[in-house]
Amino acid sequence: MVGKAMIRGLWLLTTLFFMCSLQAGEKGQWALVIHGGAGTILKKNMTEEKEKAYTAALTEALRAGEKVLGSGGTSLNAVEASIRVMEDSPLFNAGKGAVFTHDGTNELDASIMDGASLQAGAVAGVKRIKNPIALARMVMDKSKHVLLTGEGAETFAQSQGVAMTDPKYFFTQSRWDRLQQILKDESSDFKKHGTVGVVALDTHGNLAAGTSTGGLTNKMFGRVGDSPIIGAGTYADNRTCGVSATGQGEYFIRAAIAHDISALVDYKGMPLQTAVDHVIQKKLTDLGGLGGVIAMDAKGNIAWSFNTQGMYRASLKAGGEPEVRMYED
Amino acid sequence: MVGKAMIRGLWLLTTLFFMCSLQAGEKGQWALVIHGGAGTILKKNMTEEKEKAYTAALTEALRAGEKVLGSGGTSLNAVEASIRVMEDSPLFNAGKGAVFTHDGTNELDASIMDGASLQAGAVAGVKRIKNPIALARMVMDKSKHVLLTGEGAETFAQSQGVAMTDPKYFFTQSRWDRLQQILKDESSDFKKHGTVGVVALDTHGNLAAGTSTGGLTNKMFGRVGDSPIIGAGTYADNRTCGVSATGQGEYFIRAAIAHDISALVDYKGMPLQTAVDHVIQKKLTDLGGLGGVIAMDAKGNIAWSFNTQGMYRASLKAGGEPEVRMYED
Repeated sequence: MVGKAMIRGLWLLTTLFFMCSLQAGEKGQWALVIHGGAGTILKKNMTEEKEKAYTAALTEALRAGEKVLGSGGTSLNAVEASIRVMEDSPLFNAGKGAVFTHDGTNELDASIMDGASLQAGAVAGVKRIKNPIALARMVMDKSKHVLLTGEGAETFAQSQGVAMTDPKYFFTQSRWDRLQQILKDESSDFKKHGTVGVVALDTHGNLAAGTSTGGLTNKMFGRVGDSPIIGAGTYADNRTCGVSATGQGEYFIRAAIAHDISALVDYKGMPLQTAVDHVIQKKLTDLGGLGGVIAMDAKGNIAWSFNTQGMYRASLKAGGEPEVRMYED
Repeated sequence: MVGKAMIRGLWLLTTLFFMCSLQAGEKGQWALVIHGGAGTILKKNMTEEKEKAYTAALTEALRAGEKVLGSGGTSLNAVEASIRVMEDSPLFNAGKGAVFTHDGTNELDASIMDGASLQAGAVAGVKRIKNPIALARMVMDKSKHVLLTGEGAETFAQSQGVAMTDPKYFFTQSRWDRLQQILKDESSDFKKHGTVGVVALDTHGNLAAGTSTGGLTNKMFGRVGDSPIIGAGTYADNRTCGVSATGQGEYFIRAAIAHDISALVDYKGMPLQTAVDHVIQKKLTDLGGLGGVIAMDAKGNIAWSFNTQGMYRASLKAGGEPEVRMYED
């Protein structure tokens, strides 16, 4: 009798343990995917030093997200932390490394979205904000609005106690030289786009996505691309997926790329990678646009796709090692 | 033999005539649907004079579109012509009748989209443009961009020879009084939103959609709503439908309302009215947002839906009479 009870007890314990593991496996695993822009990124044009620098920066961004997610933090905090690292690096066209407008200024855009509530925040055309992703988060958390623009967005930032950054902070020699080069030869086409973005899944099962950019070198007329546009450059919905895009923003707006991927998963039941490939390789390509996306669903499945010659991208999952890639597969 | 040849000839003629009628019936019929904003619009609060004024203005906007479409003009030209009429009227919150921002200025947004090419243009936060819809059209036709904002958009307008309008033009006493009222009592909620929009189908079978607004009374911080956001306030795709929205813009951005309707038609094969009702009555309502949309597919099927107590709306089809409505059905 004692033996039978022991066996039954052991069986119960095993079942409980199995159920807990299953739950952890399904709900408790965090995951992170990031990009640092798509464009002509060829192994033959890359120095070892440059490759190392990008690998280090992307890995640091992953680690910042891991720090949040690994300790049970929210996907929104992870997206913000990870993007901040890339905004603070001169390597990417976001924050510190933002490209110059036609007028020689730096105008930054960013957006963030919460897949649990569909809350979102975005800023466009800010010039004195060190971390636009943090301000986008504030717009979401502290205002009734989604999109704030220009000086108005900076006034909002000040009302929230955000210190204004001297626009000189955004000066980097290579970006300046690039503007001078384009001003001489306007035919110089889309080569590289260093927009950054992150999609994160936290241990609570919530997705979040965010994107940050300095826009186009030589941009004029207060041009705004897809990065601060919810549905174009950024989207997140726990029921479907989180998406962050990079590329020729006008095409991403016209095709509502980020929302379209979510809609294909939602209404067609497409697997995430199929949806991402369809929207980038077929729809965007047919329109004539260049760029790429990263995406993740609430099960932690990661997908990316781009129709350029390369995209800086990296991913990390709970218990795994960072995977960093730059070139075409 | 002669008789047989005659019969065969007559049969051929009849077939040809039938085929031509069919083509005219399917491809040659133009149609137009417009809105002048959704909100609390109750018969009991409406004077006969006010009702007449709105009916006249909406009918005039329909007639402007009819003039274009009836003579074989494009749906893009019809959208622009019809919206111009509403922008020039003080009755709507767009152009002349734009509401005031917190700072006592008028900041206008507009967008337009071509269902044949998925080309689009939009402007946000312009202060000296009499007809923002015409500038949105210019952004589409004359620039490489989709969305231009603030002073930059005005600089672009000047480069295109558009005369700057004295901001005083946008002063209307009733809008000014409304701002003063809200400044005294900020709790005053969303009551009426006079954003205007048009969806048109031309005799060539092409859809176009456009939206124009003055935004929210008392808006701050360079807030931008859904009207200039392709995918949120405006979308058009010949394969699915054209959509223009009005309401609490933040919710329309978060739910990517205009693109979502297109996606439901595209991926779920939903009839247009079903898609429009699902997105407004179910998805927008569940999010807690208020507003409405007008929509039309390439067969000229017209649909509208709103979860407010009324929406100014009207439609006209080739050979038909204007249908103008304001209240709940």
